[in-house]
Parts: sequence; C-alpha cells; structure tokens
Amino acid sequence: MTKILIIGGVAGGASAAARARRLDEQAEIIVFDRGQHISFANCGLPYHLSGTIKDRQSLLLQTPRSFKARFNVDVRINQEVTRINPKQKTIEVTDRTSGKQYVERYDKLLLSPGATPVKPQIPGFITPKTFSLRSMADMDAILSQINQANLNKACVVGAGFIGLEMVEALVAKGIKVDLIELAPHVMPGVDAEMAAPLTQELVRHGVNVYTQHQLSQVEYHDGQLKLRLSNDTTLSSDLLISAVGVKPETNLASTAGILLGPSGGIKVNGYMQTNIADIYAVGDVVEDSHFVDHKARLVPLAGPANRQGRIAAENMLGGDVTYNHTQGAAICKVFDLSIAQVGLTEKQLQAEKKPFAKTYVHGPDHAAYYPNATPISFKLLYCPNSETILGAQAIGAKGVDKRIDIISVAQRAKLTITALKDLELCYAPPFGSAKDIVNQAAFAASNAINGSSPVVYPDQLDPQDPNLQLVDIRNQPEIAKLGTLENSINIPLDSLRQNLSLLNKNKTIIVICQVGLRGHVATRLLQNLGYQVKNLSGGFKTWSMFGYPIVNM
Amino acid sequence: MTKILIIGGVAGGASAAARARRLDEQAEIIVFDRGQHISFANCGLPYHLSGTIKDRQSLLLQTPRSFKARFNVDVRINQEVTRINPKQKTIEVTDRTSGKQYVERYDKLLLSPGATPVKPQIPGFITPKTFSLRSMADMDAILSQINQANLNKACVVGAGFIGLEMVEALVAKGIKVDLIELAPHVMPGVDAEMAAPLTQELVRHGVNVYTQHQLSQVEYHDGQLKLRLSNDTTLSSDLLISAVGVKPETNLASTAGILLGPSGGIKVNGYMQTNIADIYAVGDVVEDSHFVDHKARLVPLAGPANRQGRIAAENMLGGDVTYNHTQGAAICKVFDLSIAQVGLTEKQLQAEKKPFAKTYVHGPDHAAYYPNATPISFKLLYCPNSETILGAQAIGAKGVDKRIDIISVAQRAKLTITALKDLELCYAPPFGSAKDIVNQAAFAASNAINGSSPVVYPDQLDPQDPNLQLVDIRNQPEIAKLGTLENSINIPLDSLRQNLSLLNKNKTIIVICQVGLRGHVATRLLQNLGYQVKNLSGGFKTWSMFGYPIVNM
Repeated sequence: MTKILIIGGVAGGASAAARARRLDEQAEIIVFDRGQHISFANCGLPYHLSGTIKDRQSLLLQTPRSFKARFNVDVRINQEVTRINPKQKTIEVTDRTSGKQYVERYDKLLLSPGATPVKPQIPGFITPKTFSLRSMADMDAILSQINQANLNKACVVGAGFIGLEMVEALVAKGIKVDLIELAPHVMPGVDAEMAAPLTQELVRHGVNVYTQHQLSQVEYHDGQLKLRLSNDTTLSSDLLISAVGVKPETNLASTAGILLGPSGGIKVNGYMQTNIADIYAVGDVVEDSHFVDHKARLVPLAGPANRQGRIAAENMLGGDVTYNHTQGAAICKVFDLSIAQVGLTEKQLQAEKKPFAKTYVHGPDHAAYYPNATPISFKLLYCPNSETILGAQAIGAKGVDKRIDIISVAQRAKLTITALKDLELCYAPPFGSAKDIVNQAAFAASNAINGSSPVVYPDQLDPQDPNLQLVDIRNQPEIAKLGTLENSINIPLDSLRQNLSLLNKNKTIIVICQVGLRGHVATRLLQNLGYQVKNLSGGFKTWSMFGYPIVNM
Repeated sequence: MTKILIIGGVAGGASAAARARRLDEQAEIIVFDRGQHISFANCGLPYHLSGTIKDRQSLLLQTPRSFKARFNVDVRINQEVTRINPKQKTIEVTDRTSGKQYVERYDKLLLSPGATPVKPQIPGFITPKTFSLRSMADMDAILSQINQANLNKACVVGAGFIGLEMVEALVAKGIKVDLIELAPHVMPGVDAEMAAPLTQELVRHGVNVYTQHQLSQVEYHDGQLKLRLSNDTTLSSDLLISAVGVKPETNLASTAGILLGPSGGIKVNGYMQTNIADIYAVGDVVEDSHFVDHKARLVPLAGPANRQGRIAAENMLGGDVTYNHTQGAAICKVFDLSIAQVGLTEKQLQAEKKPFAKTYVHGPDHAAYYPNATPISFKLLYCPNSETILGAQAIGAKGVDKRIDIISVAQRAKLTITALKDLELCYAPPFGSAKDIVNQAAFAASNAINGSSPVVYPDQLDPQDPNLQLVDIRNQPEIAKLGTLENSINIPLDSLRQNLSLLNKNKTIIVICQVGLRGHVATRLLQNLGYQVKNLSGGFKTWSMFGYPIVNM
C-alpha cells in the first residue's frame, strides 16, 4: 500500500489527491495544508470582494469533510510542514491549532505549496491597512476593511492580473482607487501597445493610473496612509493592496536539498519529479521549461497546476506520463474589456534576441452588420523563418478568450502561420465572421512572409524619414475625426488609381489605413505597378495604441 | 493580360474577384450575377426579417460601384450566363433588363453560382404565399408578407439552419409558427440527442414542432393555406416558408460538359479546377472530399466558399495553392440556445460503418461559482484505434462556438484525443474553468480508451438486462427532483464505500450520476475493488436527452 503525502491542498495538490485515489483505492493519501481551507476558488476571490459572487460558500469547492467522504483522503488543515527528511522519507508537521508536532512517513511526497505574495522592500510598507490577496483569510480581512463605512480611498500597488481584478472589485464597492505600477504600462505581462486600451478603460472608471511610478515610502498615522511616490507625488489612502507578484514557496524544499532552477522555482523533470527520489512538485512552486523557447520560467496559472497535479499522481503510482510544458494562456477581465495572451510576448522575444515578426489586425468579434459587434485588437507573433507561432495577444469586450484559445491549440499542435489560413471556424452572424480575425491575421502574416504585402511596424516607422512618402488612404471624414501621421498626404483608396501622379517613385510609399485591411489592397496595387511600398501593420489604430504623435490634416 | 470571368458575385465569387485584383493589377476581371446584388450578407437575411438587423443597407457589403472603385472589377448584375463554350473559351450572356444577348471571351473562368433552394414535390406546394430565403429579393418578398397586418400564422417546412432561423425571425414578429420536419428531430444535421434541447427551446417559445411529419398536400384559397400532413393533421397558415435544403446550381456547368461528382456538386481538384481546362468552381456549387473521411460531400458554408474563392483566384493567376478540405464547422442560434458542430456526426459514421467511440460531457461555460454560468452539453466522436477526432457537437446558451472552434483546430491539426488533455485554454472565472469541458471530454475519452474507466452509452443500455445492476450514485434530492432509470438502486457516491455489500459481484455494475463526473469516480473505485463496472457516459442528463424512460424512485 503506497503512502502518499501531499503538501498543499489547493489546485495542484487537490487535483493530485483526487486523481491518486481514482487510480488506487488502497493508497493512503494525506493532504497537509497550512491554511484553513483546501481546494478553494483562488481565482474567484476578487469577485467575492466586488460582490459579483454573492455567496462566500460557493468559493469552497471542497472541504476536508467532503474530500474524505468522496475520495477517502485524510485532509489535515492548519498543519504546517516544517521539515522534509528525504533520507528517512519523513516529514515533520506542526499542528498550528494545538502546537503539537509529529512525524509522518511517506512512500511518495508531493509538494504543492504554491506561491506567496512578494513583499516589496519599501520603508513602512507593512501597516495594519496593508493587505495582499491569496487566501480566503486574506479575502476576509480585506472584506472587513471594505465594509467599513469610512473607507473611501484605496491604493493598489501592482497592475498585473490580481492588481487589476482588485481595482475592479474596489471600484465596484464605490471606493476611489489609485493604481501604482513600476512598469511603463499596466498589465506588464503583455506588450505596451496591447495594454494601452486597458489604461483608458481604467481611467474611464475613475481610476488614477500611475504607471512608471515607484512607491518609495509609506507612512501610517491614525488609520490613514500616506504614500510617497518616487517623483515626490504623495497620495493619501485608507487601504493599501499589495499585488506586485508572487514568488514560489520554496523554503521547505530548498532546506531539504531539493534543487531550484534559474527562475527560483523548484526544478522538475517532465514527470514532475524533483532531484530527490520519490519527491514530486507541481503548481506555482515549480518552474517549467516554456513551451515556446524551453527557457525556465515561472508561470503561476491554475490550469497548468491542475494538469501537473494529475500527472504527478499518475507517476507517483507507477504511471509514465509527462507534462508537455506551459504556454501561458491567460486572460484577465478589466471592467468591460478583457485581455488575453498565449506564448511569449514581443518584450520576451526581444529580451532573448529571438528572430520574430508580428502582425496586427483589428476586427469585430462577430459580423459587423449584426448588432452589438465590438472590436478586437489582435497581435500575432511568429518566427518568419520557421513560420512557428511564438505568441498572441488580444484585447476587446468580447471573444478574446476564443481567439487566444484557437491560437493556443494551433501553437500546441505546431501549426504554421500558413496553416492558420485554413482554420475552419464556426460562422453565423451572432458568433463570428466568414473570415475571422484569426484567419485575417494569418493572411496578413503570410503575405508579409512571402513578400507580397510588406509591412512596416509602427515602432519602426519614422514619419520624418526623407526616404519615405506617407500616404493615408482613408476617406477624408475618417481623417478629420481621428487625425493622421505627420507628413502624410491623403489619397483615398478608391481614387488611388486616378492619382498615381501624386506618388514619388523614388521613395518608399508607406500606406496608412485604419486597421491595415485597405492598406493591404493599396500595397498590392502599388507593388503590382512597380512602386516600393509598405503597409502600416494594423493601420492607424495600431499607431494610436502605441501612443505615437497624431496630427490633424 | 489575363481575362477572368466570374459567374456569381456572392461569397466565393466576390472573394475571388478581390483576390485576383490584389494579385494582378492588369488582369481584366468581370463578374456576372443573375441577381440584383453582389456580395450581400446571405447569412444576415433572417436577422433583418426578425428586426434584429435594422438597416437593410448594412446587408449590402459591396455594390457594383464600390467594387469597381476599389478593385477595378467590372460587375454586371442582372446578367444571366446562359451557356459556356469551352472550346471557344467564351460564355453567352443575357442582360435580363434589356434582353440583349452577347458573348464574352475568357482566359480563365470561375463558376460560383451557389445553390438554389430545393423545391419539394408536393401537390399544390407553390402558391402566392410560398417563399424560400436565399436572396435579398426573397427577403424583401417575405418582409412584405410579414408586414401585412393580417399575417398571424406561418408554417416553416424544414428544420435545418435556415428553417430554424426563419422560425426565430417569425416568432420575433409575433407570428405563430408551425414547424414541419420529415426527420425524427429538428436540426437533422446533428445527432438526435444533441438536438433534443432545441425542440424544448422551440416549444418554450410557442412553436408547434411537427417532427417525423411529411407535408403531403397544400391547398390555397382566398389568401389562406391549408397544409395537410401525412398523418392527416391539417394546419392552416397565412405563409409557407420552404427551407428543406439547397442543391448546387449545376445546370450551366453540366450542359458545358463539366463533370459532377457523386453528391451532385461540381467535381473539382485541390486547385478548385473542374475537368475542363481553365474552368474553376468554388462555393456551394462544388463538392469536396470531406476532411475526415474523404467522402464527396456538399457542405454549403460561407467560410469554405470564401477560402475556395481566394485559392481559385491564386491558381487562375499562376499560383500553386490547394484547398485543404472542409470540416463542416457550423453554428446556429435558436432563440437563447446555440448549437454547433464540426466533422462528422454519429449518424454519418454509422451510415458509413466507420469504427467510432463517443464521449458525452456536460459542464458550465465558465466557472460555476461565477454568476450566469450556463450549461453546455458536449459530444466528442473519435476513432478508438487511431484516437483521431472524428467530430464534435455542442449545445448551450453561451460558449459553444469557442468549444467547437477549439475542436475544429485540433481536428485540422490532427491532434489525438490524448493530446486534447494537454490543451491549455485561457482561464479566469468569467471565461472558463481550470479544467474546461474540452479537457474533461479528453480525460473521459482517454480513460475509456485505456480501459481505466469503461463507459456504456445510453443507447446501448437496457435497464431490463438481468446481467446488469444499475446504481444511481446521486443524492436523494437530485433523484426525487429529476427521476432515475428503471431498476436502479440508489447509493450516494459519498457513502459508496460503506455500502459495497449492496452490490452484486456477479453482475456488471452500471453507475449513473448526473453528468458522468461522479460516475467516473465511482467507476474507478469499484474497478479498483475488482467489480465489473461501467459508467453511464454523460450520466442521467444524456439519458434524458435521448428521451429514454425515467421513473421516480
């Protein structure tokens, strides 16, 4: 009879325990959790704070009692594992309620302790009004603050997933929010231009967004916080939410001699085994060699944690299954927008000096002529040589989950960019378009790859470059309303053939339209006539997302 | 200079014309259309009838004038092509307005005439109140009927995509609708049990659904229709909508010696070439060897037509691209439900005697604890030997397009069922679940394939079989509310370990839960203890969808 001990009873640990029992009715399975709850809906915490999820109980997916009844698993909450003795194959446990200490033997040990919020090293940061959100207890503590009548103003430090979800929750409660982010833009895990609409959405909901600002000092007097930013701005606040990221809970592991990887997470092989025999690890505590570039990365996400737990359980019981790496498919709702991503970002590709090309497209989530279509901005990153999909990001009100999931499947299946053109997606006017933006991105990328429709990226384009002639091919009313690029002339696409004399054959023509589609038509036209021409990828809309200068014509 | 003639200016033809121009600025391109409009939003017609799409103009995506301005394409509407002379490489055209006839020479000819509604051979069927919906003119004609004050009752014959969309449109206009379908269930293109919720949805909206009924005779007197059904039911109606399917418009082609395939559509190769040199065909008029089984099939869908048009244009201009077959990804909204499918159905697999296995799962479109989660029923069909994905169907209020698109990409990429387990999908509570139903289906299928969790399908299970012991493992309140299968005993899952003595080791235990998830836990438990056991695939919910007998316990 195999004795399996599992440290940590949330996503990865709970999945592993359930799977282990399904594989082996005889195994002895004990789950230790330091906290009061197992298998709670981590990702739901901000939504209970906002009042969206009314019932706190609904976040408790399993209890020790239900887990025992269903899976015959001995779940021990409020139990802190203080030491692992790999030679003896034992762990030392302290019951946090009674203080009692005891030792438990294992045949197989699974570490699933998760990650803890990073505590910024800022003078005065920890106060009675400073909170982070990771556990049910954290949520309860924040909730008791929020429910105080005199709580009017809150400050959230860190504009990643949790930070943004916390901002939305606080605003929903009628609290005025300052958001501080060290990086140049909110949602630093995506590329700047793709996150730009989020900032607008935050501002539209009354949030003060301080990007590229560092919190340098916190003072606390009489229940009031004074937050000093590095540029000498001072903010007052009733509540400070720290959401600057998480770090893997590796103390226990490293003192036991379990190796960590370069990213700081536990190093595991494909079987989720650590360097020590019979000790496995899963979830936010481990690093994974990334699906795209095999670089060791921490990608703390619920889906991978669940799958890793399942795989570790199989292998602990004699199975032979491997984890096929994390792509980092993720999504975050920010008020009426959502942003999703998969694979690597341009920033990551640049940092690693990987060859890449990119394509921007913008289109409606469903047929434009059917009511309530909303725009999606989509960025596809790929290797121009191998045509491999490197990553994708999408932002919009609806349908971004679907598009990123489509790319995630295609990336996992190692489809090329050209193969994306063939994807057959469900179409009826309420759901999509006969040529979905995913297909359109593939068309555009493929035309760029084969040279039939060369593009220039906004971040490569200098409107002052004397070798270029910028031609805005939108209609006059569009330009009057939205503006255009400096030094551009206007020749509407539908009269381009009649106005070729305005073009300079000695310059490279840069064609600019709203989203890049008409630009493609013009690029083909001019290229066929022998001009040097490039289409502004994603058009004026992408240019605007970069925040580059706009002039009236 | 290449001269390209295109017959038919809607999806495939319009795509081809635009693509041809982008490839070659010099080519002479002429589009002939018998109707008054090109490039109109075919799929939007029912939604203008319902009033959902307010503006009729928004359905006209391009006009001859706009197409000329943008693409320098000569679009000739109201022009009927009456003859193709392949030897002379000419076509004969009649101007339907003036009656003038003329001849046009071609270098390359593209046939994109689409399909026409099938006219049922029923005595008296054609009346002044009989309509079908294919063109703008059809829509206008129906609209003028609907807008008559005394139109109270309509009958729709045929419960496929168009039929169901027409039913919804008519109901939206306050018209009482009878729906007649020859097949045993509505939406005959999917499997019966998956379509069952649609019938309930139709009935909930006051529609009288006559499945397995044939319209045998129509009488028309004084503006009133009398419809006689084969079982002698007689219905009265003010309007008769015929939506019994479409057939490819092959007359012109076949008189010119262009070969048709076994399905009745024009036979083309991967380049979209017909058997006659320099004549290509795309869209609803062609048959395709199906992606899954390579059988010649007609799959009249907008997405494939667009892609085929693009490919034909490239090849007509010297390109070398092939069409990679149609999977049949499709979706239809029916009031508050939508149903989507890809690949082959069980009916098709049975008809062809293909080996297949199936998995049913039911789950929420997003995390159940986040508000407004709605159930999705999902059916996955696969080959148990090769683990190839054969098809999938999904029905629910939200998110079925995403799940079928995911499967469509996976199927196109030839991922196996086991690989589906690894799919990494975006997860946050408003969008999905950490284990999406697609992953769950893969888990279940994989467990069935490797024998670790055998299933019985509802359509294989005879509750009277003396070799079986049926055990409903749901809780008593669930059974009291919903009922159970005949001859089943109740042992709630969480007390199963304590009640093993109630099980008969000499029989095969059939475990029944609500959706199959708890059944899997029980199956593993009992199998590990040495019982012969099978899980009812998709649980009691799937059993109910089949309409099989239910008893109170």
